[in-house]
Amino acid sequence: MSQEFVLSFKKDISLIEQPEGDRIILQSSDCKLTFKQVTSGLRTALNTLTTNKATAQQLIDLVQQRDGIHAKLKFYYHLQKLSALGWLCYSVVIDDLLLASAIPLTCDYQFSHKNVDVECKYALSRFAYCHQVEEQIVLESPLSYAKVVVSNWRGAALIAKLAKPQHFRDLTVEISGITEEIAQKFVALLLNTQMVFEVAKNASVEHTTNITLAQWEFHDLLFHTRSRKGRHTNLAGGTYRFLGQIETLPAVKSKMSAETIDLYKPNLETLKALDPSFTSVLEERKSIRDYNKIPITAQQLGEFLYRSARVRTLMKIEPTEISSRPYPAGGAIYELELYVVVNICEGISPGLYHYAPDMHQLCWLSGRNEHTEELLQGAIRGVGSDDELQVLIVIAARFQRLAWKYESIAYATILKHVGVLYQTMYLVATAMELAPCAVGYGDSDLFAQAVGTDYYAETSVGEFILGSKDSNYR
Amino acid sequence: MSQEFVLSFKKDISLIEQPEGDRIILQSSDCKLTFKQVTSGLRTALNTLTTNKATAQQLIDLVQQRDGIHAKLKFYYHLQKLSALGWLCYSVVIDDLLLASAIPLTCDYQFSHKNVDVECKYALSRFAYCHQVEEQIVLESPLSYAKVVVSNWRGAALIAKLAKPQHFRDLTVEISGITEEIAQKFVALLLNTQMVFEVAKNASVEHTTNITLAQWEFHDLLFHTRSRKGRHTNLAGGTYRFLGQIETLPAVKSKMSAETIDLYKPNLETLKALDPSFTSVLEERKSIRDYNKIPITAQQLGEFLYRSARVRTLMKIEPTEISSRPYPAGGAIYELELYVVVNICEGISPGLYHYAPDMHQLCWLSGRNEHTEELLQGAIRGVGSDDELQVLIVIAARFQRLAWKYESIAYATILKHVGVLYQTMYLVATAMELAPCAVGYGDSDLFAQAVGTDYYAETSVGEFILGSKDSNYR
Repeated sequence: MSQEFVLSFKKDISLIEQPEGDRIILQSSDCKLTFKQVTSGLRTALNTLTTNKATAQQLIDLVQQRDGIHAKLKFYYHLQKLSALGWLCYSVVIDDLLLASAIPLTCDYQFSHKNVDVECKYALSRFAYCHQVEEQIVLESPLSYAKVVVSNWRGAALIAKLAKPQHFRDLTVEISGITEEIAQKFVALLLNTQMVFEVAKNASVEHTTNITLAQWEFHDLLFHTRSRKGRHTNLAGGTYRFLGQIETLPAVKSKMSAETIDLYKPNLETLKALDPSFTSVLEERKSIRDYNKIPITAQQLGEFLYRSARVRTLMKIEPTEISSRPYPAGGAIYELELYVVVNICEGISPGLYHYAPDMHQLCWLSGRNEHTEELLQGAIRGVGSDDELQVLIVIAARFQRLAWKYESIAYATILKHVGVLYQTMYLVATAMELAPCAVGYGDSDLFAQAVGTDYYAETSVGEFILGSKDSNYR
Repeated sequence: MSQEFVLSFKKDISLIEQPEGDRIILQSSDCKLTFKQVTSGLRTALNTLTTNKATAQQLIDLVQQRDGIHAKLKFYYHLQKLSALGWLCYSVVIDDLLLASAIPLTCDYQFSHKNVDVECKYALSRFAYCHQVEEQIVLESPLSYAKVVVSNWRGAALIAKLAKPQHFRDLTVEISGITEEIAQKFVALLLNTQMVFEVAKNASVEHTTNITLAQWEFHDLLFHTRSRKGRHTNLAGGTYRFLGQIETLPAVKSKMSAETIDLYKPNLETLKALDPSFTSVLEERKSIRDYNKIPITAQQLGEFLYRSARVRTLMKIEPTEISSRPYPAGGAIYELELYVVVNICEGISPGLYHYAPDMHQLCWLSGRNEHTEELLQGAIRGVGSDDELQVLIVIAARFQRLAWKYESIAYATILKHVGVLYQTMYLVATAMELAPCAVGYGDSDLFAQAVGTDYYAETSVGEFILGSKDSNYR
C-alpha cells in the first residue's frame, strides 16, 4: 500500500468491552461481531480504530509487537472482514488535522486501493458534488458507494483545483500545509471513491469512451440514485418524519376564490351501463393534437373532470385525512391539484381556474392575461401543434402533502402520480371521444406567478391538453 | 453600495460597434439593445463591461469625467436596464485575479445588493452545491436564479468554511490572499445569490421557521428545478443532442435468453365485446394486497402482459425506430422493460424472467435465488403485506433510449411513464378480476445485480405486484 490511509470505524459502529471472558463486541444497526479471548494488542488496535489515529500498517505492527507474528496474520484477516462489511473509513490526516474521510454508504463499497501515478492527470468527475450536510462539507457522487467528508478547507481547495485536469504534484502550489505526499493521498482517496477520474492522454473529457454515462445528465443520475434504494442508507418510504413537528396539509385544498362555476355531473350508473368496453377504450387511445372547429363544451369539461379527478369520499385515518378519487395515489394522499386554462370552451369564459375536486367546481382565478397566454404558448411548443388550443390542464403538486409522510421518494412518487393521472385522463377522453394529449414539459416558475402560489409550496409538474375531436380524425 | 462588485456582461451578450452613426448594438439570443449617438465615455464604459475590470462606481465616474453629469445619470439608467435584463455578472476580484462571479440564469434574477453585517453569522445553504461544469467549479442552488462560477481555489476554501456558521471576518484566517474586505464581498455575493443565509441568533438551522422549505429534500428540489422550465436556461425537450455521435438503442431490446415461454394471447375482439365497461373498471379499481390461495395462472399472466404492454407495431420514423403499445409514451420511444419475478404462478416455475414484448414471451433469466428472494422481500416491505406474493413485476428503464432524444426532462419523463404503466396495469388487472398493487420503491442496485445489467444502462424504476383475487374480497 503506497498510500497509507488512516483507518477508523464508521460512527454508527459501537465497540463494547465485556470484562468477563475478555470479549469485545462490535455492533452496527444490523450486524454484530464478537471477538473472544481478546489479546492486548488486538484490544488496543480495535480501540485505536474508534479514533482517527493509525494506518493499517501501524495497527498491524502494533499487534505484532504485543501479540506476536501469529496474531498479526489473524488481525490482517480481521481488517479485511471489517472492510468487507463497509465498517472502515479511510482518512487523510495532516499531522493531527483531519483533511478528509471516505465513508462507505453500503457494504457494497469496497475500497480498491488504486494508486495514483505521478505522470497521470486527474480531474473531478462531472457527477461529483460538494454540499453542506449537518454543518459539514460532503462530497458525494451517484457513481460512488461512499461519501467523502471534507473536514478542512484545504480539501475543498484541492477539489476546486481538480476542476481542470491536474498532476497531483501541481496541486500543492499556493495552498499552505499541502505537501506532495498529502496531495497524492488526497487524490488517491478521491480516485478510490469515484470522485475523480484518470484523464487519458488523448482525451480530456470524462467518459468520452463510455457512451452510457455520456447520456446521463447530472440532475437525472443524482436523483435516480437518491430516490431509489441501493447506494445510500437514507431512510425511504413512509417515515412520517415531521409528525408532531409540522401540521400536515388538508386532504383537499380550500377553495381558491369565491367566484365558482358548478360543473356538470354525469350519472355514473348510466355510464357504467352505456360506456364502451374497457378494452375498446384502452386499444383506441391516441394522442390527438388536431381539434374540431366546434369547441369542447362546459358539459364535456365537467364530465371529464368528474370522471378523472373528483373526490369520491374523505376519510380520517390517523395521522392524516385521506380521500378517494378515480385514479390511484400512494397512501391515498392526493397531492395533485388541477388548474384549467380555458382558451376556447363553449360556456366557460377564457381564463385560469382551479378545480375544486370536492365541490366539483371551477374557481375563477384570472381572465385571459399575459400569463395564461404564455402557459398556452408553452404547451403549443411542447406538443408541436398548429391548431389553437382549447383547454390546457396544468397539474400542480402540493409537495409537502406527500413529503410530510414519504422520505427519499416524495418527488419520484409525485411524478409517478402525474403519469397515473395522464393515463386516466387519456382513457376518459377516449371514452368521451375528446382529443387528449400529454405535454412533455412546462414552466413551473411561470405557473407559480400565474396562480400566485409559493413556488416551494405548490407549482406545476405536468400539463395535458384537451379539445373536441375532429370528426375526420381516425 | 458598500460592497462594490466588478460588473461585466454575460458571455452570450455580444457588443457590435457600427462606425456609421456612432451606434453600439448589444445582443443576446433573444433580445437586442441599440445605443445611438454613443458618446466617448459610454463607448468606453460599454467596452469595459466586456471585461472584468470595473465596478459600477468606476464606470459611472468614467462616464461623468468624459461626458459630463447629464450623461452620468443616463448611464446609471442604462446600468439598471442591463441589470433588469439579466445581462450583468457581479464579480469579486482580488487585484487582477477573479475569485468568483455571479451569473444570472434568467431575467427573473435581480441582484438585490443586500449587505453583510459584521455582527451576523452566515452559513452555506443546504440546497447549494458545487460541481464541475466544463472544467469550472460552479456553485448552484435550486433556490437561486443565478449561478456562481468559482474561478479560484480560495473561493472553494471560503465556501467550505461556511459549512458552519461564520462571521465574515473569521473567514480570512489561514487562507493566503483573503483580506477581510474580500471575505465581506464574497459572502455578500453568496448572500445575493441565495447560496448562504443569515444565521439568526437563536437558531442555527436554515429554514427552521420556513416549514415549506424544511420539507424539501435536497435531491428532490434540485431535480424539480432542473427538469422543469423556469429557473435555468438549459435546453429542454426533444433536442436529439447525440444524433450523429452515438447510435440510438433499438426500439425493442433483443431477447435476453434462448429459454423462452410462449405466453397466452387473448382475442382482442372478444375482449372488446365482452369486457366490462370502461367506467365500471375505472371506478372499481383498487389496490389489493390479499390473495386467493389458488394462485394466478400462466394464462392470466399472459393475458395481463398482452393487454398492458405488448408491442402492437414497429415503425421506422427517422431518426429512430418507434413502436406502438397499449400505454402511451413520449415520442413512442418506449424505454420501459418488464421483468417478472414469479413466486407462485400455476404453469410457470419460480424465478426471474424478462418479458419480450414483441414476441409476447417470457425469457428465463434465473431460478429462485438469493436475489429473487430479496426482490420479493423488498416488495413485501414496500406494500406492508402479510400474504405471500405471487408475481412481482419490476419495471426497468433503458435510460439512454429516452435520453438520446430528450434533454433536461429524460428521467422525469421516465417516471411519468412508470405512472402511466401503473394505471394501465391497475385497470387491466381490475378488468381481469386480479389483485393489483403498485409498490412505493425498490432497490435498483439489487435489481441490476439480479438481472446482470449495467446499472447506468438499465435498472429498475418501479415495481408492481399481481396475484389472484380472494373471492371474499370486495
